[in-house]
Amino acid sequence: MTIVQRAKIAKQAGITLSAVSGEMKNDALKTIARELKNQKEIIFEAGKKDLENARADNLPNPVIKRLVFDENKLNDVISGIEQLINLEEPVGKTLLSTQLSDGLDLYRVSCPIGVIGVIFESRPDALVQISTLCLKSANAVILKGGSEAKNVNKALFDVIYSASIKAGIPEGWAVLAQSRDDVAEMLKLSDCIDLLIPRGSNEFVKYIMDNTNIPVTGHSDGICHLYIDEFADVDKAVKITVDSKTQYVAVCNAVETLLIHENIANDFLPKIFMKFENKVELRGDENVMKILPNIKKADEADWSSEYLDYVLSIKIVKNLDEAIEHINKFGSGHTDSIVSENTENIKKFMLLVDSACVFSNCSTRFSDGHRFGFGAEVGVSTGKIHSRGPVGLDGLLIYKYKLLGNGHIVADFADKKAKFTHVPLNKNCPL
Amino acid sequence: MTIVQRAKIAKQAGITLSAVSGEMKNDALKTIARELKNQKEIIFEAGKKDLENARADNLPNPVIKRLVFDENKLNDVISGIEQLINLEEPVGKTLLSTQLSDGLDLYRVSCPIGVIGVIFESRPDALVQISTLCLKSANAVILKGGSEAKNVNKALFDVIYSASIKAGIPEGWAVLAQSRDDVAEMLKLSDCIDLLIPRGSNEFVKYIMDNTNIPVTGHSDGICHLYIDEFADVDKAVKITVDSKTQYVAVCNAVETLLIHENIANDFLPKIFMKFENKVELRGDENVMKILPNIKKADEADWSSEYLDYVLSIKIVKNLDEAIEHINKFGSGHTDSIVSENTENIKKFMLLVDSACVFSNCSTRFSDGHRFGFGAEVGVSTGKIHSRGPVGLDGLLIYKYKLLGNGHIVADFADKKAKFTHVPLNKNCPL
Repeated sequence: MTIVQRAKIAKQAGITLSAVSGEMKNDALKTIARELKNQKEIIFEAGKKDLENARADNLPNPVIKRLVFDENKLNDVISGIEQLINLEEPVGKTLLSTQLSDGLDLYRVSCPIGVIGVIFESRPDALVQISTLCLKSANAVILKGGSEAKNVNKALFDVIYSASIKAGIPEGWAVLAQSRDDVAEMLKLSDCIDLLIPRGSNEFVKYIMDNTNIPVTGHSDGICHLYIDEFADVDKAVKITVDSKTQYVAVCNAVETLLIHENIANDFLPKIFMKFENKVELRGDENVMKILPNIKKADEADWSSEYLDYVLSIKIVKNLDEAIEHINKFGSGHTDSIVSENTENIKKFMLLVDSACVFSNCSTRFSDGHRFGFGAEVGVSTGKIHSRGPVGLDGLLIYKYKLLGNGHIVADFADKKAKFTHVPLNKNCPL
Repeated sequence: MTIVQRAKIAKQAGITLSAVSGEMKNDALKTIARELKNQKEIIFEAGKKDLENARADNLPNPVIKRLVFDENKLNDVISGIEQLINLEEPVGKTLLSTQLSDGLDLYRVSCPIGVIGVIFESRPDALVQISTLCLKSANAVILKGGSEAKNVNKALFDVIYSASIKAGIPEGWAVLAQSRDDVAEMLKLSDCIDLLIPRGSNEFVKYIMDNTNIPVTGHSDGICHLYIDEFADVDKAVKITVDSKTQYVAVCNAVETLLIHENIANDFLPKIFMKFENKVELRGDENVMKILPNIKKADEADWSSEYLDYVLSIKIVKNLDEAIEHINKFGSGHTDSIVSENTENIKKFMLLVDSACVFSNCSTRFSDGHRFGFGAEVGVSTGKIHSRGPVGLDGLLIYKYKLLGNGHIVADFADKKAKFTHVPLNKNCPL
């Protein structure tokens, strides 16, 4: 079957899946976890084939590292599934209830979006996370993984799909797309696919956004800032800077630019220079170089760069306003953190920095679905529509309005025979 | 100033506006309502100019009718503003609060989206509704109205803008675009405009969706269905059919297709035929024509037609499943209603019909922001991302995550020196 045919079946399966009980979905998740353990040798074997191919093709080391799917990764994804099972049933929740008029009751009820298209990088654990998040939220899903991971992705998909069908989930609810041409087809399927979640390089995400009119959730850049306020505790500031920059450099929530209030720069900068010597390349503006004359000079391009590497740009600012302005101008709306003991400054920073995640006195690296307690994440959104920041189950849900009447017609209201009451009901939808 | 320059200023003003207090926003809304009354003669005068031009240009009657902005329309928009003033402050609400770890608290807090671009049809009352909804939700707004209403739109905009500035709202928060070229520019401004809301014909909305990569909220078609179940109360069914079709035919929530269970068709069809004789053109499938031999035959194209006129297509279905399947295949996901006294059938219909609004035993015409109690609406969304159905203030809001720590770093968690607790806090964000 072509991807178009399978997408049409997925759309239909998604509607059936939306009516499946929470118990059946949790049973399916348990079956998936069990079967992943039972069939782990087949999965590891497929993963080894991908690793051999990757080495034969001389793929870069970071790609090879991401490809690995071993006992540790298996345990991680299984613990993710267990967290999902324990999360409250997300579908069918009454979000709003209003009596519109006597005997005419309105309910806003959560429901799945429909069909989610996910195009992801080489990490095979992403396939497990995303497909199980979609199952819990009752969405059909079309998955396209990196070609480097094609064998392990296929093995994981086969286990997940057959375990879910065994547990009673409608056939066709999950589809594995395998060729690059399938991606081009997916971008055109606005009749079938309701939301696209691309995960990968900036260029790739931008390409997807520019080449489809299906709504896209994702992030392109992760240019995160740390602002060291004049009222910062310098020890905390140093600790948070080191963690935000070096705890894991190749990720979107690592810090790229450090903004420092001029009153604290003389105290703070030499300390961070000592910490980072020979480990992180520092690039400073003119004022920074007066204090640290031996570092590289930052130019305009540095403020818009996502290094994903052991590089940090540094700028001295006159005040909090200048820091906020810089972040809103050069940031990517992902995660920005202030280090300060002054509550008013923290409050102002959090109110006026226009980013998905605004933190105080902690590392930017906390910006993550697992750390936020969402069980798993489908990605991080720097968009401002539907979902923002780390996206868990919530980002895969929407709602429908259910209106229960008893012969009510609009003409009676136009003729003033009936009138609107608009009284909150505070109760769950009975149907 | 060009539209691009004004959009950049609007983006900045939007950030300042996001921090304005609820009191100031309500003061501004009160000032706007007062000034609209005080300056009504200037507004009516401008409206007369548009009407004269429209008549001189021989514009169609429905367009001329929509253009009218008189004392009645003024009272309507002022009562809309008063409703908005009474609505709870929507910005800064804590939507989720979780202790991630000891002393590390996460809050999800509602905030405005940023800059909303609205391109609307000739009704000048839309300008008042949309700009005041944006003000209440603290969004900057770029408005482009129909050229037929350019004088009245300018007069309304001037009153609203100067009243809001007088009340302390940041300058530049609202922009009136006046030329057709401005629309083309707006579609490119994905750096400044966060959400586009087009209101107008299907072709127009589709054009916008196909020509921008800014997210779009709106609806193209409104193909609404009414399903008369075998367990329907026939009197209610007739009353609801008449209201859904004829209470106002030229609107998206009027019914276009009637689906009738075969067991009730012999009883119901002659009754609806009598009601509609000489008023509504009926088009039936083969089975309908066996009962009503003198009506027009419906062809395949009828099932996908939004007539917006005194025309109704009718199909007899074998059962509820066939009705649901038909609606999911041919409907536009707007509003569909079932008439039935059987709770299980109502429940199944509401669960499996994949539309924004699923109703039982009431007219499709209730699908509207005012009737739903949202104060006003920016439009109706048939999309499934962010907002669905009638869109009020909620559709203009998103959230940011605020994380309050005290020197917390990720390395401590990776090294097992600290651990995640993920305990619900059930409290409002203190900052």
